Amino acid sequence: MRCFVPCSVDTPKSRLGPVLTLAERQSFATAMLVDVLDTLVTAGYRPTVLSTVPITDGRVTDRAAVTVDSRALTTAVNSRLAEDTPTLILMADLPLVEPADIQRLVDSEADISIAPGLGGGTNALVVRDAGFRVDYHGASYLDHRQAAAELDATIEAVDSRRLATDIDKPEDLAEVLIHGTGAAHDWLVDTGFELDTAGGRVGIQRDE
Amino acid sequence: MRCFVPCSVDTPKSRLGPVLTLAERQSFATAMLVDVLDTLVTAGYRPTVLSTVPITDGRVTDRAAVTVDSRALTTAVNSRLAEDTPTLILMADLPLVEPADIQRLVDSEADISIAPGLGGGTNALVVRDAGFRVDYHGASYLDHRQAAAELDATIEAVDSRRLATDIDKPEDLAEVLIHGTGAAHDWLVDTGFELDTAGGRVGIQRDE
Repeated sequence: MRCFVPCSVDTPKSRLGPVLTLAERQSFATAMLVDVLDTLVTAGYRPTVLSTVPITDGRVTDRAAVTVDSRALTTAVNSRLAEDTPTLILMADLPLVEPADIQRLVDSEADISIAPGLGGGTNALVVRDAGFRVDYHGASYLDHRQAAAELDATIEAVDSRRLATDIDKPEDLAEVLIHGTGAAHDWLVDTGFELDTAGGRVGIQRDE
Repeated sequence: MRCFVPCSVDTPKSRLGPVLTLAERQSFATAMLVDVLDTLVTAGYRPTVLSTVPITDGRVTDRAAVTVDSRALTTAVNSRLAEDTPTLILMADLPLVEPADIQRLVDSEADISIAPGLGGGTNALVVRDAGFRVDYHGASYLDHRQAAAELDATIEAVDSRRLATDIDKPEDLAEVLIHGTGAAHDWLVDTGFELDTAGGRVGIQRDE
């Protein structure tokens, strides 16, 4: 199955700005991408990264083809969906995802299998209907359900915490520290982040 | 299997204070409890609510036995674990949970099957090891893994977004509006909440 991982590692993850510099966000976004690619390769896929800029990091190029597409996310993905189906689209900021989660997406027999993100986004899709197009703006999970309904296409949501956990905000880093085992987890630890459970509520802190 | 749902509907969900009054939080917490009980009953269980105060709401008492236990959560649950195993413990603030999710917990053959919550909590447990005790303080998911290891008990995490989504904070209400279908969803709609997707990022707003 064709498999694409859209990502923008040049200006990534602005919502992590309160805790990471731009250079750190670029480095962390790349680590998350490496984790996602590792999972896809282990699951038997040959992913193509759809990147807004060229990527030369060997950890990425060893695991995936890289296609530069500077257009907006929705446009870039729809261009691939217009070429052929079935197609798997997996976001690059899902460092917790495991091969079994990909299998659950692919095992679905629905025309569209979708993994909603927290907050109503769309973190992963398997598209088997040639007419389906994405729109990642806003509550895209609901919009994608509606789009499938308008095509009379069946849609199935995969209930996965790991697929739902896209890493956008400082509090999301706790999920990587708790559950992660790969490059993104190690990057956070090496950068001085650790869990803060002092108040009985779990947060993060960074050693200075 | 014995099945307990701990809850405190008298002073619930203080973190929802910015958007709901105390009386509203009590009402919403009860609606979430009803959803959880509905799911358990549909899945074939006969749940017992461990409540800090008596509950007379017919929607609850029609679906479950209610045992008043005013002790702290950890103490109350450990008292039940000391009585008998296997035991299913499911939190009351999981209005998205579906019968299939309960089945996934129960189907595990591990001594402990656990559903982590976002932020490292423990949202659900099936305990088959008579020596296992809970401690819900802090990052309890990690503590429970450690406790299982110290008992040489096997532990398996169930990867479920619905089981992971405990409703604590105002932003969590968006999850109920997006994915919910039961009493908690209807309560929010009836109270005037709706999704706010105006800024491209999904939030909630309340009609005044």
